[in-house]
Amino acid sequence: MKKAVILLSGGLDSTTCLAIAKSNNYNVYALSFRYGQRHEFEIEAAKQCAQLYQVKDHVILDIDLRAFGGSALTDNIDVPKNRKNVSSESEIPITYVPARNTIFLSFALGYAETIKSRDIFIGVNALDYSGYPDCRPKYIKSFETMSNLATKAGVEEKSKIKIHTPLIDLSKKEIIEKGIDLGVDYSKTHSCYDPDKKGISCGACDACILRREGFESANKRDPIQYAN
Amino acid sequence: MKKAVILLSGGLDSTTCLAIAKSNNYNVYALSFRYGQRHEFEIEAAKQCAQLYQVKDHVILDIDLRAFGGSALTDNIDVPKNRKNVSSESEIPITYVPARNTIFLSFALGYAETIKSRDIFIGVNALDYSGYPDCRPKYIKSFETMSNLATKAGVEEKSKIKIHTPLIDLSKKEIIEKGIDLGVDYSKTHSCYDPDKKGISCGACDACILRREGFESANKRDPIQYAN
Repeated sequence: MKKAVILLSGGLDSTTCLAIAKSNNYNVYALSFRYGQRHEFEIEAAKQCAQLYQVKDHVILDIDLRAFGGSALTDNIDVPKNRKNVSSESEIPITYVPARNTIFLSFALGYAETIKSRDIFIGVNALDYSGYPDCRPKYIKSFETMSNLATKAGVEEKSKIKIHTPLIDLSKKEIIEKGIDLGVDYSKTHSCYDPDKKGISCGACDACILRREGFESANKRDPIQYAN
Repeated sequence: MKKAVILLSGGLDSTTCLAIAKSNNYNVYALSFRYGQRHEFEIEAAKQCAQLYQVKDHVILDIDLRAFGGSALTDNIDVPKNRKNVSSESEIPITYVPARNTIFLSFALGYAETIKSRDIFIGVNALDYSGYPDCRPKYIKSFETMSNLATKAGVEEKSKIKIHTPLIDLSKKEIIEKGIDLGVDYSKTHSCYDPDKKGISCGACDACILRREGFESANKRDPIQYAN
């Protein structure tokens, strides 16, 4: 079995991505981050999902992105609520964390190199890359090219590192349909940027809105609880 | 004055790199890492150099690369001593830390984006890239390309992010000559991979050998103390 490193936030997208990697017979090594996010509850979701899918290992790294600041996800900036047209966002949202995916993918690359894996999975998708620069297909391709120059793989080996983005062209509706096909238990996942202390999702941030719209379009019931 | 982010380890190379950035009239923001290295003493050197050069800010991040393992710099693997032909090394040394420069540059990118800087300095050089894949010029170029796709700079702005490598074609001798020209106080720098508890350099690891050979070739006295 081939080894794969998966960036696992415990959200709907990364958990679906994990299910896809498993269905493709990868031996999965999950990687999550405590990066000073408001929604640290997602780490608990990541642990549950990792356990459910019996990943080979689950590394949780502490990296404090608050040292730089600059995002509503890590700073004392209010998370925007009840915004209209979230899914057709064309500007970069205030929830963008500078270079977050680049930092996450770099650690995934170090992890992959250490365990001699050539496959990294990240659950970015079409909705993300309407707003976040580091979710666009050409960014991912460029990271992959760089990875093959950065590592032993690029110097010594013939098999190249590949960044897998199985959700990249899918809408939230399609991701949910795909996940349900694969038997994903979405009650274990967590998407909210601004949950309460018990981890109950707010229902009104961009992440909640996109998730709820996704389940509605797919004509499925979202099994998690919302405050509103 | 333009802002620049500098990866500062407190070593000979990065401190010379800092002096070069200052001589080019950049307002310098230094970034260092506690990554589980044996030679954490270098952080003290980085602090001293940052202070000496009156950097605008100095961020020290904790990231534990031991979570992955795989290097003599972070693991319980012996640091090689008294090796021959260190400077013509063609294999990747055991002191290589998987994806380290990619991880460091990714954080520098996040820092630069947050403070609205477009300039990142890293002190990689010709000697490094004979052994470490992530020091080669084509790797650096590829990281730069990726950076401009990853960030707001690449989406919204006309001025592009640039990764500056002023030492890339220099030998250790030339770096030392350049630094002395610029008045660098090398007594404040630290290079050893395996110092003793007081921070005294071993004199026999690859980093010490290269440093000593460099001072000798430049016909200058190395102002630091060695155990052997």
